[in-house]
Amino acid sequence: MGVVIPLEEKSADRLIEPLTTLVASDMERVNQTILARTGSDVTMIPEVANHLISSGGKRLRPILTLATAGLCGYSGDGHIKLAAAVEFMHTATLLHDDVVDESDLRRGKAAARVLWGNEASVLVGDFLLGQAFRMMVEVGSLPCLDVLSSAAVVIAEGEVMQLSAAKDTETTEDAYLAVIRAKTAALFAAACEVGPILAGRARAEVAACEAYGANLGVAFQLIDDALDYGGSSAKLGKNLGDDFREGKITLPVVLSFRRGGTQEREFWRRTLEKGEVADGDLETALMMMKKHRALEDTVERARHYGAMARDALELFAASPWKHALRDAVEFAISRAH
Amino acid sequence: MGVVIPLEEKSADRLIEPLTTLVASDMERVNQTILARTGSDVTMIPEVANHLISSGGKRLRPILTLATAGLCGYSGDGHIKLAAAVEFMHTATLLHDDVVDESDLRRGKAAARVLWGNEASVLVGDFLLGQAFRMMVEVGSLPCLDVLSSAAVVIAEGEVMQLSAAKDTETTEDAYLAVIRAKTAALFAAACEVGPILAGRARAEVAACEAYGANLGVAFQLIDDALDYGGSSAKLGKNLGDDFREGKITLPVVLSFRRGGTQEREFWRRTLEKGEVADGDLETALMMMKKHRALEDTVERARHYGAMARDALELFAASPWKHALRDAVEFAISRAH
Repeated sequence: MGVVIPLEEKSADRLIEPLTTLVASDMERVNQTILARTGSDVTMIPEVANHLISSGGKRLRPILTLATAGLCGYSGDGHIKLAAAVEFMHTATLLHDDVVDESDLRRGKAAARVLWGNEASVLVGDFLLGQAFRMMVEVGSLPCLDVLSSAAVVIAEGEVMQLSAAKDTETTEDAYLAVIRAKTAALFAAACEVGPILAGRARAEVAACEAYGANLGVAFQLIDDALDYGGSSAKLGKNLGDDFREGKITLPVVLSFRRGGTQEREFWRRTLEKGEVADGDLETALMMMKKHRALEDTVERARHYGAMARDALELFAASPWKHALRDAVEFAISRAH
Repeated sequence: MGVVIPLEEKSADRLIEPLTTLVASDMERVNQTILARTGSDVTMIPEVANHLISSGGKRLRPILTLATAGLCGYSGDGHIKLAAAVEFMHTATLLHDDVVDESDLRRGKAAARVLWGNEASVLVGDFLLGQAFRMMVEVGSLPCLDVLSSAAVVIAEGEVMQLSAAKDTETTEDAYLAVIRAKTAALFAAACEVGPILAGRARAEVAACEAYGANLGVAFQLIDDALDYGGSSAKLGKNLGDDFREGKITLPVVLSFRRGGTQEREFWRRTLEKGEVADGDLETALMMMKKHRALEDTVERARHYGAMARDALELFAASPWKHALRDAVEFAISRAH
């Protein structure tokens, strides 16, 4: 068993290259901003922040901010700080998530909370959130501040929603979607919305970019959830089956539970609701998912949202930006192939 | 032993009454805003938020925002949302602090983390921070956003600084002051600065209010630290000696350690650095503090900052607001009498 859906990291990476190439010089400035803004006389702050920030995340969210600004012909500087702010918001969420989930591994490295304690993860997360807002204020666009501060609220709501729904195997697909729309897609959407706002584009174009981001975010999270049952620890940066051990109800579980018989549902209740996980249970879970095509159909669902993301962009005239953003959708989904 | 510095809650309360009376109608609107903004379809959010918010804190920080706006003749509506935002920032800090300190008691009630878990405290704190920024954005003053987002960064830095300095009995008074300036005084200062900014007052007056808040905040924290060794659980809302058990280095300890002999320093190292606290150790600590007049002198230091806070206000012409704000300084300090 093990790897149900094998990864072909290389071919997926090829799909994001047009986008990373287009934003390369801007991204260099974002990285410098990130480095400068994690600086503090309190040495623990850059230590903790850089441990996570330098751990090789793809920085997809700030890339999206730069790319949608590019798509909309923005020629100012504000997108650099907003992209850094988006990455800080994301990093703060990761730091706080690790405390909430009691995770030991993040992006293939020991989680900050393991090395510096929960306290540092909570507080450095707060520091990064504060710095994110400070950068947004420096950019000085109230509409952008509105979009990003609203996203911060929705993300936190989504996380609490997930907490409330946790361990409920009867979670519906819709309830699950509401959670990931809030906890993941809201930041993708905001990241894609601020560029067009800075560029002064019409409401319809701003909305198109927002919809692109929101649907891409849902697709991205669905693939992440599938990879948790089908990726390898090295490539995913977390352990295979982490979600299972943490009792997280994700779409592969929602589908398997609904499609399974009484005995199977009993299995999911015991392992996820009661948290009674024995040796071999992960293998059993993977087998049930295979039987019900739960991972394949999770990827299918992701394709649906990916298609919506691509269509949202159709409003824009052909350009290298548009094509690269389309490829990014393929990238997000093909991680599961 | 026990109560070294007896509280006369009643007489202290009398000193804050002029201020609470002046802001009463504005405060009613702030309370409504707070209630409205803790609302969420995710029911755990209002539950956790209101548990803490309705637990009878004095709401000193939002009161200061309203009062300094009043002092400066502000006639708009923005101070209501900013006052609510300040209280949310404070509440978020308390929720995160409880997780960091592993506290069981907050304002005389079980801490949220005990009732709902660390996860909920972290995430509802994030929600309140997000809502705070959202309200600031709605007010739409970029200078106020600058002040409050900068404060958020400084507060987080202060908390991490405290974490780094924790359990170091050789902390100097200056290092300790740097921590409380950041973790406590920065929010008091920001709370007092935004009113005059909204009112469009001259830079010198804005700076005067900021200085008033910063010095009041230092005095307030010093008294809190003294009360931790000299108050009663019911009145303080936390247990006598909490700081001692958590190994927190506060000014009473800094003074006792410096003024004590080799054997006494050994005692502080064992109990606070190594965390080896035995029955009777708190009583011994209190005895040493009495011997070295550490609590009295902590209050003396607070008086110094209180005097600076009062003098900062001298720039303003006599008014009921000014007198009430002066009395508030007395209130902060007389809590220890």
